[in-house]
Amino acid sequence: MEKIPAQMTVVAISKPGGPEVLVPETRPVPAPGPNEILVKVMAAGVNRPDVAQRAGVYPPPAGASDLPGLEIAGEVVALGEGAHKHKLGDRVMSLVAGGGYAQYCIAQDAQAMAIPASLSILEAGATPETLMTVWHNVFERGGLKASESLLIHGGSSGIGTMAIQLAKAFGAKVIVTVGSKDKADACLKLGADHAINYKTEDFVVAAKSMTAGAGPNVILDMVGGDYVERNYDAAATDGRIVQIATLGGAKITTNVAKLMVKRLHHTGSTLRPRSNADKAAMVAAIEAKVMPLLREGRIKPLMDSTFPLEKAADAHRRMETSAHIGKIVLEL
Amino acid sequence: MEKIPAQMTVVAISKPGGPEVLVPETRPVPAPGPNEILVKVMAAGVNRPDVAQRAGVYPPPAGASDLPGLEIAGEVVALGEGAHKHKLGDRVMSLVAGGGYAQYCIAQDAQAMAIPASLSILEAGATPETLMTVWHNVFERGGLKASESLLIHGGSSGIGTMAIQLAKAFGAKVIVTVGSKDKADACLKLGADHAINYKTEDFVVAAKSMTAGAGPNVILDMVGGDYVERNYDAAATDGRIVQIATLGGAKITTNVAKLMVKRLHHTGSTLRPRSNADKAAMVAAIEAKVMPLLREGRIKPLMDSTFPLEKAADAHRRMETSAHIGKIVLEL
Repeated sequence: MEKIPAQMTVVAISKPGGPEVLVPETRPVPAPGPNEILVKVMAAGVNRPDVAQRAGVYPPPAGASDLPGLEIAGEVVALGEGAHKHKLGDRVMSLVAGGGYAQYCIAQDAQAMAIPASLSILEAGATPETLMTVWHNVFERGGLKASESLLIHGGSSGIGTMAIQLAKAFGAKVIVTVGSKDKADACLKLGADHAINYKTEDFVVAAKSMTAGAGPNVILDMVGGDYVERNYDAAATDGRIVQIATLGGAKITTNVAKLMVKRLHHTGSTLRPRSNADKAAMVAAIEAKVMPLLREGRIKPLMDSTFPLEKAADAHRRMETSAHIGKIVLEL
Repeated sequence: MEKIPAQMTVVAISKPGGPEVLVPETRPVPAPGPNEILVKVMAAGVNRPDVAQRAGVYPPPAGASDLPGLEIAGEVVALGEGAHKHKLGDRVMSLVAGGGYAQYCIAQDAQAMAIPASLSILEAGATPETLMTVWHNVFERGGLKASESLLIHGGSSGIGTMAIQLAKAFGAKVIVTVGSKDKADACLKLGADHAINYKTEDFVVAAKSMTAGAGPNVILDMVGGDYVERNYDAAATDGRIVQIATLGGAKITTNVAKLMVKRLHHTGSTLRPRSNADKAAMVAAIEAKVMPLLREGRIKPLMDSTFPLEKAADAHRRMETSAHIGKIVLEL
């Protein structure tokens, strides 16, 4: 194994702003603490929270790296005290608390997962964030069951494309909303049963007609805004609506009697502030229940585009166009 | 057993309006259908939905009696085909689909419960609606556990006073909001740990300070309106907010990011439209888990006032003042 250098190249946020504020810097390579591992990063996924952090509206939690990057794949090159799950030289993928846009990154030993042979290193770098977000929100929080129906807003996003595959693999019916024919085609190709173009169709009417009038049992929503009341209108009785972002606005108006009369559950979560114990529990559940599907090649991230680390600004520009379909990843 | 007459006295809603539209009428005594029983009514609870139905804003569900009255206690005087749970002459209390303001009323055999010796017939008539509402919403839906905390809005209402007793009996900490010193005293006497006067205190600040800053784990809300966002502010992380009415308005504005960041569950329900199977399942759970507490005298409805059936209008006037503390019941 090659020697770990003292310094590394990273991409930092020089100040809050547009993609141009992402600049290469040289930083010391971090040393893993107890129960941590040091990963030589080979791929780093790009996610919406990175964009928000860059814009200055989503500060990293206390104690986390100030560098962007919430998921990585690479080789384990150092083990902290008590880190026994992975060995030096193992290839792992992991959610990280920040700092993914760098040649080396600290991960929690318990949160890192062995990369199945079915995934390329780039695919692995684009997997942890969406896999954990979808697993926790759709299954653990939303309680989606086989034979139920799931409506996914933003079907062609990284999260959407992972949610389509997971929900189909677990036997649910999947309906997505998308903004173009290309995105609809991509979702249908991944296994979605129906794609609704929200620009030309009312998703409430469409989702109900695609479920024989009953409405979807679970709705995964990253929009918020006026979608909240429309989700109430669309959902089945006893439906679960899981809010994972508010790209359309957090301040909402709705009729709460609709929630009551249909006995809906409106819940939501954000992944980053969860405790390491919570994240490790999600990873353990995923390793038991989802990893077999990844190994069989039945689930893998849909890849949109790859950029070298130093072109992270271009990766952000791509994400901000919303033209992407699936995951954007940085290659090192 | 006395003979069942062909005709009976009821109190009907002559037209939508104020309490004065409640008028005595003579109607045929109904005959119990399959799995139904006929109860000679000795006490009939008065509930908010009766008031809404009288005002014309809460029509009875299809197939239900047009008469008000959702809970009764009395003697079983006829059994429909297949009704085996209760015997002729048994004294029972039951939720009913309507028609409680009458000398005789149909109940579902499976939904009727034997009256424990600890309850008077008037108390029994004031028990089923609040018992089922609180059990389902606080425990089955809100998942309140021992050592958790419950915030009850409208602590001195029929539902509030039942919720205080049930939550305390199951080992939870109880905080209520009320509008007067008298109501606060009544709630504390029933076992509530803290009472917040919403007219003089901000319940968000008070409920947090009473839970060491964490906020209540479960909130039972019958207000809606601006309470929705304030409930989000007050609730603990992973808190459950259960909406059972919207006396303060159903159209609400809130910040849904608060729900997401705290991983709240906002849910709710209405009892009346539930299927007979759902209601029978609630009754079975209550008979197993709550009835022992009633038999021991640890839980009984707090009684506000009793009116003869023909003074139902006065009972409604009392409820509409909101001066009552606990249950209002009609005596026959």
